[in-house]
Amino acid sequence: MARNRPIPLVIDCDPGTDDAVALLLAAASPELDLVAVTAAGGNVGLDHTLRNALALMRLAGHSTPVYSGADRPLLGRYQGVQWVHGEDGMGGVGLPPGGPPAPGHAADALRALLRTAPAPVTLVGIAPVTNLGLALATEPALADKIAEIVLMTGAWGEGNATPAAEFNALSDPEALQILLGLGRPITIAGLELTAQALVTPARIAALRTLGGGACLQAACDVLASVPHAKRLGGEGSALHDPCAVAWLIAPHLFTARPCFVEVDCGPGPNRGRTVIDRWDRLGRPHNARVLETLDADGFFALLGQRLARLP
Amino acid sequence: MARNRPIPLVIDCDPGTDDAVALLLAAASPELDLVAVTAAGGNVGLDHTLRNALALMRLAGHSTPVYSGADRPLLGRYQGVQWVHGEDGMGGVGLPPGGPPAPGHAADALRALLRTAPAPVTLVGIAPVTNLGLALATEPALADKIAEIVLMTGAWGEGNATPAAEFNALSDPEALQILLGLGRPITIAGLELTAQALVTPARIAALRTLGGGACLQAACDVLASVPHAKRLGGEGSALHDPCAVAWLIAPHLFTARPCFVEVDCGPGPNRGRTVIDRWDRLGRPHNARVLETLDADGFFALLGQRLARLP
Amino acid sequence: MARNRPIPLVIDCDPGTDDAVALLLAAASPELDLVAVTAAGGNVGLDHTLRNALALMRLAGHSTPVYSGADRPLLGRYQGVQWVHGEDGMGGVGLPPGGPPAPGHAADALRALLRTAPAPVTLVGIAPVTNLGLALATEPALADKIAEIVLMTGAWGEGNATPAAEFNALSDPEALQILLGLGRPITIAGLELTAQALVTPARIAALRTLGGGACLQAACDVLASVPHAKRLGGEGSALHDPCAVAWLIAPHLFTARPCFVEVDCGPGPNRGRTVIDRWDRLGRPHNARVLETLDADGFFALLGQRLARLP
Amino acid sequence: MARNRPIPLVIDCDPGTDDAVALLLAAASPELDLVAVTAAGGNVGLDHTLRNALALMRLAGHSTPVYSGADRPLLGRYQGVQWVHGEDGMGGVGLPPGGPPAPGHAADALRALLRTAPAPVTLVGIAPVTNLGLALATEPALADKIAEIVLMTGAWGEGNATPAAEFNALSDPEALQILLGLGRPITIAGLELTAQALVTPARIAALRTLGGGACLQAACDVLASVPHAKRLGGEGSALHDPCAVAWLIAPHLFTARPCFVEVDCGPGPNRGRTVIDRWDRLGRPHNARVLETLDADGFFALLGQRLARLP
Repeated sequence: MARNRPIPLVIDCDPGTDDAVALLLAAASPELDLVAVTAAGGNVGLDHTLRNALALMRLAGHSTPVYSGADRPLLGRYQGVQWVHGEDGMGGVGLPPGGPPAPGHAADALRALLRTAPAPVTLVGIAPVTNLGLALATEPALADKIAEIVLMTGAWGEGNATPAAEFNALSDPEALQILLGLGRPITIAGLELTAQALVTPARIAALRTLGGGACLQAACDVLASVPHAKRLGGEGSALHDPCAVAWLIAPHLFTARPCFVEVDCGPGPNRGRTVIDRWDRLGRPHNARVLETLDADGFFALLGQRLARLP
Repeated sequence: MARNRPIPLVIDCDPGTDDAVALLLAAASPELDLVAVTAAGGNVGLDHTLRNALALMRLAGHSTPVYSGADRPLLGRYQGVQWVHGEDGMGGVGLPPGGPPAPGHAADALRALLRTAPAPVTLVGIAPVTNLGLALATEPALADKIAEIVLMTGAWGEGNATPAAEFNALSDPEALQILLGLGRPITIAGLELTAQALVTPARIAALRTLGGGACLQAACDVLASVPHAKRLGGEGSALHDPCAVAWLIAPHLFTARPCFVEVDCGPGPNRGRTVIDRWDRLGRPHNARVLETLDADGFFALLGQRLARLP
Repeated sequence: MARNRPIPLVIDCDPGTDDAVALLLAAASPELDLVAVTAAGGNVGLDHTLRNALALMRLAGHSTPVYSGADRPLLGRYQGVQWVHGEDGMGGVGLPPGGPPAPGHAADALRALLRTAPAPVTLVGIAPVTNLGLALATEPALADKIAEIVLMTGAWGEGNATPAAEFNALSDPEALQILLGLGRPITIAGLELTAQALVTPARIAALRTLGGGACLQAACDVLASVPHAKRLGGEGSALHDPCAVAWLIAPHLFTARPCFVEVDCGPGPNRGRTVIDRWDRLGRPHNARVLETLDADGFFALLGQRLARLP
Repeated sequence: MARNRPIPLVIDCDPGTDDAVALLLAAASPELDLVAVTAAGGNVGLDHTLRNALALMRLAGHSTPVYSGADRPLLGRYQGVQWVHGEDGMGGVGLPPGGPPAPGHAADALRALLRTAPAPVTLVGIAPVTNLGLALATEPALADKIAEIVLMTGAWGEGNATPAAEFNALSDPEALQILLGLGRPITIAGLELTAQALVTPARIAALRTLGGGACLQAACDVLASVPHAKRLGGEGSALHDPCAVAWLIAPHLFTARPCFVEVDCGPGPNRGRTVIDRWDRLGRPHNARVLETLDADGFFALLGQRLARLP
């Protein structure tokens, strides 16, 4: 897919080990113009995710502004997954400190950015999307300035936070439903897709052989810190968030299916479950496309090639 | 209750006939310092509620800034009750046009106001409280700058929009739940309270005899336009919203009960119902007080006395 | 209302202090032909409710068969209210033991009775209606043999078990919903109606002056054991269940309103709440009538007159 | 697994094409003692499922009593899937008529059978399990007479009736939840397991070559009538119900995982979804085991070997 200009991009993230790799992949890719990063509480608390996002941007040599956003979901209470990402969100991999955050709340910054953007902007949400939900619920008309929303969220089958729900979706289902109701193109990388991006010791070893600089090595260290998932056979862990970024760089690595998606916002055992109607059983208009297959070797090749370019 | 200084106040409204009277009551009362009015879509669409709020402030001779806010709830779709309030929200009572709205979104204005307020501010919500919910969900720390939240919302018994839910609560239950979770003092005037503020032809006639200016007459015309409620015996209609304002001016007219309150945000037949635990059956910590009784004659006397002061 | 023949009647109960009075009222009334009593776990456990029903029938000198039924709801777990009815369900009032239960399960007995009944039978449910629900879910065609279902259940406003739900409805909402879906005439005495049947010390004293036999005195002792309800002003307690029986004997003491009723079977805070659409807000076909007003003096006069006839 | 005596078995079914094969498999297997068959409305209406069950038992030369049961779920309305199973439930494959049903309701027959069984009985549910739910909700103590409950129901991932729910589970979630709460061993063959029993034209052809009698040929005709499932790649259809029977005959063909299972009985978009906690995320006590893998070639070999024995 030939593009003349890089895609203007905002990433809403909660680094988080896989978020870290996603940010570096975006920073390293000339197809993308990372105009802002917004941080939310998620995998770990906001204080950590903000610090990590700042550190990663500096490590990558980027001056992209990083904004601090929501420290909790629209409703309910914040609950992290420190057992996956470490107390610091980076698996204990110490990163040199970054700069200060850009002034203002992430949701405000996003609204200002969309309002003044010369061309539609792509939003990548790889966190509980509270920031995105707040921005668009406050100014729904800004949906017209969104080119596409790409989310790492949900699953059509089993969840990973509960048997029903994926972590990001469960963390703020109401914010996710706000996005699903906007009427803009939404692309979803759920757990079945990201399970195909399996990080194994062999793949980490292969990445390390590429040399590269501090960024690649930090990425490898961070990936090595993630506990292997029993759900995935115990052979590795899923590299969730970079899939959403890779879709924008190399869509030919994916197959996608248009469908209707909603998220369960009720109080029952399926709270936070994304209902992804891949087989059109409900007959409702499609409001999203779900990524179904990934060329995993191509994906890791892309990842290595790009991360190796960074400082 | 002696107060040295007027209470700084923001009213979030959707005028709406009873909102109109509430705004005029606030504007006429020296105990209150109406620092801002925010408008939302509710009883009628945002374009009408904004225009009405502006017209009412001008009619009252007030320069309070009026901000335009949410035209829809956080989730779901906007649905008005034009059959109660007329297509224009004022029961067809033509008001002279007001000035222009103050710049910026209501939720942003509220946040700025709270952030810089020298003393805690009281929030009165007499609409779907989307604006308040957006502001506080975006900056939960601003809760510390709130003295009290007074809401016309909900019911401990029957609703008026569905058999379960009152109109304001049903219109944006998620926004209401955000407020209920803030940990700030919340006072609720629900349908059982406002039913005691029964507007009858006799009471309107009594108000008209007070003379007064254009404001009082407009208020009477507006009240006369509201269809009588079968639910209330067909003898009149409930003057919902001014009760929330009157609580701040003349709390001695009310009795209140501290209790736990939550709102049903699920998809079932009780969506939007406020669960008001007046008898402590759940044993949960109190997060609100619900107004139980109103001295109706005292209330209407207050109303007449104050509206008669206005131009 | 002149009737040529007594109404064939089955009472599904969980005595329970107010159930006791309801059973005695039915036993004492020539307008009714009490053909069977079925017991369920409810106010107290099934072992107690069965024993109490048997004792009451013997005390009343009736040979009506009493059947043992469900000891738990269709879903979920049994939970009693011993603090209202005492550990034994009779407020500690010792009754002489009754005879043995009739053989077979209550739901089976009810089905056999309906199947072979020469004329339609009226069902009175003053318990969690698990027995009725089981019978009718097993043989829905038997609905044609039901003249009317009269239930003490639910409320259009506040509950008494939770802020949302009345005890009987909450105890087995699924069973109640089965009945509401049958398409047969259903009459509901909810908490607002039964609150009008306020048992005060004065009313108990008046009953005692009637003399009567062991039954009347036992009824008075049982009523005196019930704690006064804060919800009702602390002056007495509601005599719930006899209202359902009185409706069949003296409908002129009541006013009723046809409406649509459903019960919340979801997992949220309104589980077990009856949604009673008295004002036709939903526009759905009426499947029940709800009793709205009671002539309380007439009701207690009836009660005294009838109980005084018993041994 | 050596067994001295055949397993006493009741099958609750709604034939239904795959039910037909399951019944024949049970009838042909000496490891099983099929003591009763109960029919419910499900894939098609009760009149058809009963007729088909009777016809199949006669075709198999068995005198097992067949009972007629529920024609609708506990709550809600009956809804079939004639587009999968044909109007007659047998894909239009005409079977010679069977004998008359055994007298009495399926749920009653099951209770009588359990009550008098000399040894614990295994229940196989391959339908909406209304009959089983009614029996066990009426007499929960009979759970002690159940050796095991084996269900074709649910899915840990996508459903087939909605994106969330499998057909049997959706058809009567409350009945399924009754079974899940009994505290007896429950084995679940869900959609992921039965998808492995893929019926392809090649497999049908292989079955036909086995010769056999009318039963095998009817089974092949019935299987050939089922539309191929897009969900399964369009190459065939899943042979759901016989998996539940095969588990009892040849457990070595399966792997199983103990886990906690509940079913969503709420009104939201996941109604009827089985929440299968394969990875112990909820930390709740295991109440079921879910079958995870099937040796499909072994399964079809077993099926052919057994069906070829029948007349």
